[in-house]
Amino acid sequence: MLQTHEAVASLNSYFKDKFLKTRAQSMVICEPLEIEDFVVQPIVDVSPPKWHLAHTTWFFETFILVPNLKGYRVFNPDYAYLFNSYYITAGDRWTRAERGHLTRPTVKDIYNYRKYVDEHFLEFLSKEEITDGHLQYLIEIGLQHEQQHQELLLYDIKYVLGHNPLFPAYSEMVEHENREHKQRWISIDEGKHQIGFHGNGFSFDNEKGRHTVFLHAFEISSDPVTNGEYLEFMESGGYSRSTLWLSDGWDWTQKHQVNSPMYWVRNDDKWNHYTLGGLKTLDLNEPVSHVSFYEADAYARWAEKRLPTEFEWEVACQKEEPEIPASANFVENGYLAPISSDDTQFYGNLWEWTESAYRPYPYYKTDEGTIGEYNGKFMMNQMVLRGGSYATPREHIRSTYRNFFQPHLQWLFNGIRLAAHIQ
Amino acid sequence: MLQTHEAVASLNSYFKDKFLKTRAQSMVICEPLEIEDFVVQPIVDVSPPKWHLAHTTWFFETFILVPNLKGYRVFNPDYAYLFNSYYITAGDRWTRAERGHLTRPTVKDIYNYRKYVDEHFLEFLSKEEITDGHLQYLIEIGLQHEQQHQELLLYDIKYVLGHNPLFPAYSEMVEHENREHKQRWISIDEGKHQIGFHGNGFSFDNEKGRHTVFLHAFEISSDPVTNGEYLEFMESGGYSRSTLWLSDGWDWTQKHQVNSPMYWVRNDDKWNHYTLGGLKTLDLNEPVSHVSFYEADAYARWAEKRLPTEFEWEVACQKEEPEIPASANFVENGYLAPISSDDTQFYGNLWEWTESAYRPYPYYKTDEGTIGEYNGKFMMNQMVLRGGSYATPREHIRSTYRNFFQPHLQWLFNGIRLAAHIQ
Amino acid sequence: MLQTHEAVASLNSYFKDKFLKTRAQSMVICEPLEIEDFVVQPIVDVSPPKWHLAHTTWFFETFILVPNLKGYRVFNPDYAYLFNSYYITAGDRWTRAERGHLTRPTVKDIYNYRKYVDEHFLEFLSKEEITDGHLQYLIEIGLQHEQQHQELLLYDIKYVLGHNPLFPAYSEMVEHENREHKQRWISIDEGKHQIGFHGNGFSFDNEKGRHTVFLHAFEISSDPVTNGEYLEFMESGGYSRSTLWLSDGWDWTQKHQVNSPMYWVRNDDKWNHYTLGGLKTLDLNEPVSHVSFYEADAYARWAEKRLPTEFEWEVACQKEEPEIPASANFVENGYLAPISSDDTQFYGNLWEWTESAYRPYPYYKTDEGTIGEYNGKFMMNQMVLRGGSYATPREHIRSTYRNFFQPHLQWLFNGIRLAAHIQ
Amino acid sequence: MLQTHEAVASLNSYFKDKFLKTRAQSMVICEPLEIEDFVVQPIVDVSPPKWHLAHTTWFFETFILVPNLKGYRVFNPDYAYLFNSYYITAGDRWTRAERGHLTRPTVKDIYNYRKYVDEHFLEFLSKEEITDGHLQYLIEIGLQHEQQHQELLLYDIKYVLGHNPLFPAYSEMVEHENREHKQRWISIDEGKHQIGFHGNGFSFDNEKGRHTVFLHAFEISSDPVTNGEYLEFMESGGYSRSTLWLSDGWDWTQKHQVNSPMYWVRNDDKWNHYTLGGLKTLDLNEPVSHVSFYEADAYARWAEKRLPTEFEWEVACQKEEPEIPASANFVENGYLAPISSDDTQFYGNLWEWTESAYRPYPYYKTDEGTIGEYNGKFMMNQMVLRGGSYATPREHIRSTYRNFFQPHLQWLFNGIRLAAHIQ
Repeated sequence: MLQTHEAVASLNSYFKDKFLKTRAQSMVICEPLEIEDFVVQPIVDVSPPKWHLAHTTWFFETFILVPNLKGYRVFNPDYAYLFNSYYITAGDRWTRAERGHLTRPTVKDIYNYRKYVDEHFLEFLSKEEITDGHLQYLIEIGLQHEQQHQELLLYDIKYVLGHNPLFPAYSEMVEHENREHKQRWISIDEGKHQIGFHGNGFSFDNEKGRHTVFLHAFEISSDPVTNGEYLEFMESGGYSRSTLWLSDGWDWTQKHQVNSPMYWVRNDDKWNHYTLGGLKTLDLNEPVSHVSFYEADAYARWAEKRLPTEFEWEVACQKEEPEIPASANFVENGYLAPISSDDTQFYGNLWEWTESAYRPYPYYKTDEGTIGEYNGKFMMNQMVLRGGSYATPREHIRSTYRNFFQPHLQWLFNGIRLAAHIQ
Repeated sequence: MLQTHEAVASLNSYFKDKFLKTRAQSMVICEPLEIEDFVVQPIVDVSPPKWHLAHTTWFFETFILVPNLKGYRVFNPDYAYLFNSYYITAGDRWTRAERGHLTRPTVKDIYNYRKYVDEHFLEFLSKEEITDGHLQYLIEIGLQHEQQHQELLLYDIKYVLGHNPLFPAYSEMVEHENREHKQRWISIDEGKHQIGFHGNGFSFDNEKGRHTVFLHAFEISSDPVTNGEYLEFMESGGYSRSTLWLSDGWDWTQKHQVNSPMYWVRNDDKWNHYTLGGLKTLDLNEPVSHVSFYEADAYARWAEKRLPTEFEWEVACQKEEPEIPASANFVENGYLAPISSDDTQFYGNLWEWTESAYRPYPYYKTDEGTIGEYNGKFMMNQMVLRGGSYATPREHIRSTYRNFFQPHLQWLFNGIRLAAHIQ
Repeated sequence: MLQTHEAVASLNSYFKDKFLKTRAQSMVICEPLEIEDFVVQPIVDVSPPKWHLAHTTWFFETFILVPNLKGYRVFNPDYAYLFNSYYITAGDRWTRAERGHLTRPTVKDIYNYRKYVDEHFLEFLSKEEITDGHLQYLIEIGLQHEQQHQELLLYDIKYVLGHNPLFPAYSEMVEHENREHKQRWISIDEGKHQIGFHGNGFSFDNEKGRHTVFLHAFEISSDPVTNGEYLEFMESGGYSRSTLWLSDGWDWTQKHQVNSPMYWVRNDDKWNHYTLGGLKTLDLNEPVSHVSFYEADAYARWAEKRLPTEFEWEVACQKEEPEIPASANFVENGYLAPISSDDTQFYGNLWEWTESAYRPYPYYKTDEGTIGEYNGKFMMNQMVLRGGSYATPREHIRSTYRNFFQPHLQWLFNGIRLAAHIQ
Repeated sequence: MLQTHEAVASLNSYFKDKFLKTRAQSMVICEPLEIEDFVVQPIVDVSPPKWHLAHTTWFFETFILVPNLKGYRVFNPDYAYLFNSYYITAGDRWTRAERGHLTRPTVKDIYNYRKYVDEHFLEFLSKEEITDGHLQYLIEIGLQHEQQHQELLLYDIKYVLGHNPLFPAYSEMVEHENREHKQRWISIDEGKHQIGFHGNGFSFDNEKGRHTVFLHAFEISSDPVTNGEYLEFMESGGYSRSTLWLSDGWDWTQKHQVNSPMYWVRNDDKWNHYTLGGLKTLDLNEPVSHVSFYEADAYARWAEKRLPTEFEWEVACQKEEPEIPASANFVENGYLAPISSDDTQFYGNLWEWTESAYRPYPYYKTDEGTIGEYNGKFMMNQMVLRGGSYATPREHIRSTYRNFFQPHLQWLFNGIRLAAHIQ
């Protein structure tokens, strides 16, 4: 799989560099937190930060060190039970919904756990060159996995702090200006297209199985919908017109009394929104975020458009941005927020809901063994998102990358891109 | 829309014939019931039979008579509240989950309601010829709608009687033999195909929007999986091997302790199953039914196949059975059960789960007005089924017909057809 | 136990008379019902009328006929499973919350069941004289039990019809006038009193154990609070002043948005209430009914009084009405409603919430065997009510009779009597 | 109210001493905790330790400083919303069930809050002598309130640590031996007794209203049931014999699959139990604790005894232990566990369930104002416990003290004392 890295002196040194960088980045993300922030789970979707730190460590310990590092002793035999997430074939697990009940191991214990595993992992890499392809794949998965949890860490931290009536800031935000939105419509002719990953680098199993799809002619927006545009939808009664909504979406708004994106706070006839920098006046030029699929879909219907399919998104992205542009807003930029620009934006900024259900590609095959539980078993009742967000590491994303979440979720860093058929 | 009916002397007489026949058929279905059977709602998905009888009547009253028959007075002004199902734009409704709390109006009242509406509907038809296309469409929808509820009536009746510890029979069953299963694999080459309804007859909005899809080469089974085959899956531990299941499906089996299709009853080391003719020894040659999408999907994985997409199903059906065969098992045959044959079977018998999520076709447009709530708003969190069942009227089905249900439901008359890619 | 009946020619003939009368009365109560009304269970507390008819029959069959009538064959061996209510020691039972899912056996089947058991019971009585004291007790319990279910039948019928938006009447009501309320305060000096049943007639185990209590001086109202008085409480903001309520009661009003007694319906700025005779203008002179303990307690606090203890009630009743007065409003009067009078009213009309938790008397002993599950195991989380209602048979009630319900229930025929300490 | 303190130089100095001691003791209790332990709420009954620390502080701030200390500025205006527990008349509150979602204010913030309020409270006391009786009462309530929360802190800490699969110890335990149980039966003749608080010291409103009760002759055990005795109940099938249980209790065992006291852990055919010193072999001589009322009641029925009423308990305690004995096991002893002795034990060790529902005494009057919400509104669906526990401060308890909890709760430090009538 890793022929892309031919240039590197050795794979082991590539892994070492990436491991050090990736593991350090998780710590950087948690640096502004108070110890208290590491512990709680206000909704089942949000895991305690310390759980993320331990789970990603357990992943390396369980899938790399235990089977491959001779003489390795697990840091604590209870941790497999505590930090296995959903791998049924890897043994019993602590109940997901009760992760926020566990005060021990402490944050300090988990930092020690990370240190212990890091040292052994580096020791492992310092031994002979890794030549087994599956083992190479597992190490790369471990790194990608930790990058995914870095993004989840930011979702979960924002949830915990943003649902606290004190609205504490996570950190100071980098100053930036949201330029006015200049939407452009990109047209794609009808025809056959190749979908899915090909090439030599890493990809997840769910994007493999390069295959042909036929797309009818369509147009797609160059960049996402803004807060100002979404506010128009709200002010025109978007949340009270049932005909704009899918039935399950309507029921969801009624049951949870949803009438704005998550983190929008109404104060004295003015909209604020909670950002990682604290509570701020709503910026109308900023791309709208924290809308569920249901809201994105209702907005698109109101705008007399629709969401793109994941195939349309992939084709348009590859056409418009064959390379990831330097200007894309990723975690490395440190903005900690979506940003409007007058450029085309497919990568970074916000994950975009597509109208595609998350289902297997034609030749999809799950990986062998426990790692086979990584993606495939979730291909039901979820929708595909594409493109990455301001919390995604630049090197983590691809045009073929398939992210997926349940349609009612608002806590991720997602937005709305519109599309339409050309008739 | 109704150019297929050019041959008929007049549309009004076509409507009259079909109306009389359709309305009578609902009564025939309810004929074996005791009054008590008309009232209950053991789960939210099951509506009381008397509700079905009234709701289909309300549909004609509300969408045809009230706006079109001059001087028409509704039978009872409270019935709109009681018998509107899910049409938000048609006004307030009684809570769906509480349909089984209402003992009044009585069955007799509802029969009178039907009689009243029938008479007025026939009066309406006896007046001038209906020339308005939308009105024609609404009448046809009303008839199709009642046919759909006839099928639901049988699902719901079976549920009520089959979950009663006395296991009362709905009616005597027609004798028939289930021939041994001779599965044949039908191969389809890769290429572009036209999907969706075209032609002159009736179709629902969800199957409209004729469009092109590209399919990779695949094979598909000529007929559905049998009880005997499914039993092998069960006996090889199918319900306890998590790796065969989608995650949501596994959770569903654990939460509800599912370990067989619905209506299978274990007595003294022997499998019986409840049929509309009462409790019977499980017939191993009969096609398996009452499996959720999750079970169908797990079975397919165990069998090292997969479920077909709805597009594959449609293409294969049109190729193998360009016409609906005389031998197909529909409600008119009166078997009240799925039947094995050594012929190809795409139509009737059992609805077949496909691996396609129920989402809009590329050029999908909901109908205008309240009728627009018929299909489109349900295009989320449901899976497509194809082909009709032994409870479907023969003239109701088409190769392009898209049925849809949530993936955990077992109470419908559904089965499993396998497919696979040819590599 | 039955020495009171010495005068009768024989106990068997006493039992025969009472059995015939009691069994007939259950049928009389159900006479106005439609078949549909017999089937449903809108809330777990409400059982389907046909279930009551069958359960009371099962009681005689199980506790009298099966162990005592030689050669008796049960009517249907499945009925024990279907119609056992809560007697764990009598074997497995159908889930209480799912009584309303069962359409079979039909009402007709159950009438046949009643006929079969009635015939065998009369056959049993026609044989030799019953001399075994415990058996005598069980027969009397069976009769008392059916009387209790007659009262529950009326509660449940009222619930089913009164929660139907059509508000059908159960039957025509006897005309009567509610005289204006002339509340009188009865004073009782402090001192020791004897509480609990003594004498020769029948009583339940929960009222046995004659014992001494010391009561401080108190006064108690001669009759219950009226709708008019309760309306004053409402109009003075009773439902929105948290300090009037027990914490559990307040939470209950908030969760269920309770702001009036059950069956009060606001139409065009006017209060109606549903009665067994249909929807009527609220009669301000009628005693208020269908209030939970929480509402009764809040009303009393608002009125600067309190509810009496069950001991105060018993002492005052025995003092004021040593005999049950002819004027008391019982089921035999046929009013089907509470009635105001200017007389003292302790018996009949409405059960009155007391401030006493339902707990065992000092020398309480449950009966031996399955019948021991009749009362004792429910002595937790319930409050005592006293006096009987307009649905109680006159001969069923006593001054020592302890009825009990959970404090949030409104569907029973209950009211409010006030008391206060004299300081 | 505080005439008992006549001897002290001044009330202000009494308050100062007690305040310093009480406030310090809360910190001592939390001293062994990790920061993480302060944050979580695994069940609604358990509050985060930091919440207890803040809530008790808010109590002094709100009821004493704000209305009485001139110029006082609240530490943080948001804290009233966050740390009001259930005082509806004191304004809106954060949802109780979501206390464990709040990571901010941090523990350090709350320590600063305590410091700020402590300083101002001492400043307040250092001013002129407090002569207003109600204010004196409120200060004393504030101190008593904090003592109650100290006990709850230990319940909650034990829950959090004892439900963690790592079973961390709270602290090292003081060595002690549980002597063998020598139960003695104390007899009390029938007669009138005075119940409730009288005297000059502090008492809560719920124990006021000295009044007469008549008790029939009874006997009561000198000390509580041991683990060994309870194990006999378990081994004789106590948890599977429905006839031993109240109906609600039986349902509770079935629903939650309860088959031992809380914190009992079965390992390799051996019973351990989690103590504040960690997981230990079950000590058969130790008094059984962590049983719900339902379990205590079932045990008593199995033992052919019953639980005492709260009146019997009070009378027996006052007779046997007119003074609180020096040997009683209170929080000051530091055992952090119940201890068996061969002496009579009414005080300390374990709260004992009585068979009395928590209802108002005859002349009960809630306090005026917000403080009136302290006790009275909870007098429903709870049972009275008496005597104090090993987590109670010695000076906090009285023979008339009425504690109360819902009957299903196991997490408090409670035990079982038996009684019986003498016939």
